Amino acid sequence: MGKTIDIDAYAEGVLAGHRPTLARAITLVESRRADHAELAQELLVRLLPHGGESHRVGVTGVPGVGKSTFIDALGTRLTGRGHRVAVLAVDPSSTRSGGSILGDKTRMARLSADPAAFVRPSPTAGTLGGVARATRETMILMEAAGFDVVLVETVGVGQSEVAVANMVDCFLFLTLARTGDQLQGIKKGVLELVDVVAVNKADGPYEADARKAARELARALRLLQPTGPSWTPQVLTCSGLTGAGLDEVWSQVTAHRAALEEAGELADLRSRQQVDWMWAQVRDRLMDRLHRHPGVRERTPGTEAAVRSGELTATLAAERLLSAFTH
Amino acid sequence: MGKTIDIDAYAEGVLAGHRPTLARAITLVESRRADHAELAQELLVRLLPHGGESHRVGVTGVPGVGKSTFIDALGTRLTGRGHRVAVLAVDPSSTRSGGSILGDKTRMARLSADPAAFVRPSPTAGTLGGVARATRETMILMEAAGFDVVLVETVGVGQSEVAVANMVDCFLFLTLARTGDQLQGIKKGVLELVDVVAVNKADGPYEADARKAARELARALRLLQPTGPSWTPQVLTCSGLTGAGLDEVWSQVTAHRAALEEAGELADLRSRQQVDWMWAQVRDRLMDRLHRHPGVRERTPGTEAAVRSGELTATLAAERLLSAFTH
Repeated sequence: MGKTIDIDAYAEGVLAGHRPTLARAITLVESRRADHAELAQELLVRLLPHGGESHRVGVTGVPGVGKSTFIDALGTRLTGRGHRVAVLAVDPSSTRSGGSILGDKTRMARLSADPAAFVRPSPTAGTLGGVARATRETMILMEAAGFDVVLVETVGVGQSEVAVANMVDCFLFLTLARTGDQLQGIKKGVLELVDVVAVNKADGPYEADARKAARELARALRLLQPTGPSWTPQVLTCSGLTGAGLDEVWSQVTAHRAALEEAGELADLRSRQQVDWMWAQVRDRLMDRLHRHPGVRERTPGTEAAVRSGELTATLAAERLLSAFTH
Repeated sequence: MGKTIDIDAYAEGVLAGHRPTLARAITLVESRRADHAELAQELLVRLLPHGGESHRVGVTGVPGVGKSTFIDALGTRLTGRGHRVAVLAVDPSSTRSGGSILGDKTRMARLSADPAAFVRPSPTAGTLGGVARATRETMILMEAAGFDVVLVETVGVGQSEVAVANMVDCFLFLTLARTGDQLQGIKKGVLELVDVVAVNKADGPYEADARKAARELARALRLLQPTGPSWTPQVLTCSGLTGAGLDEVWSQVTAHRAALEEAGELADLRSRQQVDWMWAQVRDRLMDRLHRHPGVRERTPGTEAAVRSGELTATLAAERLLSAFTH
């Protein structure tokens, strides 16, 4: 890339669904170079009027829950019915491990070879904010290229689930039945994000356990999470391996979207997501500048230590750091 | 107040537990005047070495759950055992209604008349951030004045629960048994904050229902919330009216603290709370400055509208607002 980037050609290629151009456009959006960032925004503004038409679905669950197999099987069913399916991913840990784990093509063999699908691993753009930005903007490219289902995979840990829940219409949680009285992967803070829950690997000797786990989980959800105005999360069982229950899971995902649309909430949800994300970027960049400021960097360790030891109130400490930034 | 404020006298009065001085010091901490804020910080820095010795307990639950009666009865028991009990409150809605609701003395008749207790209504300092700051800093005054139990009441709605959970050692959730299969007041995001749960109003004809609700809730919590390294939330029943179960609830609160201390987590928790709060204040004040900036204010409506309508990417919109702020 560099001076050879022709935004007109990129826009035309993406709109025509030309896969090599789409791949180059994604690379441009993921780039951290300032000149690329400017060109990427120029491209995105052109394509925005052609975005927004897909069904955006987040898929989460701890490692081992079978997300890749599930997405491979579900995506293949959807392309079989005429959908065009994009698979994106948000995995900030991929930066540290030096390579992206999620959306790995080798783990989605059928979908990766499917001409109606496009599988893109998680960007390795640094912070969660950076990874999430690249994935959100790649979603615009995918929609402009005519993909009408976008599945965004994420790991069942930390803040990446919140980031993905804030960029999709529907958030699907995969879990497993376990011996004992706990369900693997249900953890603090995830419940409030979930629209559809599926107990995966409900096949062979595990089917009965999965059904029992689903009933218990449904009961617990009913008890702890009052019904929302337009949607109550459902708990299903499925098997990415055999395909059992996948149609029912997708029916719930589409029923969720229909409920949002009927209540007039989908357009609101999406524009709120965009505006919230704008402010989140303002806040993150402003704080990033503050953290990089030499005066702030110099004062931070001593100020934090003084707060920890009780020499300084948090309020005075905050003032001290702010004045280092603004003077 | 004004030029007559003598910080030495305030500090001495607070340390001596002189109630009128304590009340004036709280008023100083709650004041939004810049000169008061400076004096308040001077006072707090002097008193900080004398703070931190109390057991800080948050109490939440929806209106109608019986928080005031519960706190009145529990607090009276604690003063009867030789504790000195401060009751503070965080209720940002009190600003809008023009008067503070929580910690209302008329609703805590016994404790308000108890010389070993100090009941202070929620400050009406504006935003949640402002209310939470005043309450956190009042906590320092209370501790310096020798109160060894600080109960912080809040309403079971919105972000105020998160704010209170972030300033206490233990977060107690009060709920009610209900007919049907839901528990009043359990809602999104609260579960992850809770250390002890009590089903209140377990008295007379309602006792059996309360016990049943507690069992169901305990089961649901076990299923959904994996055991933490040092503590698993317990579910009890109690009655603020009859006093039944209050000793058991307090035993759980002290057991929770003992578990934290044994695991070496209490000191960490508190210093992390302080440092997090410092950064939260830095972020809030910086964003506050941005929002007040004339150039940003002028551009905000149009920029938000352009993001909503899809004319502008959130990334470009964020850049536009940031450049209005920094130029």
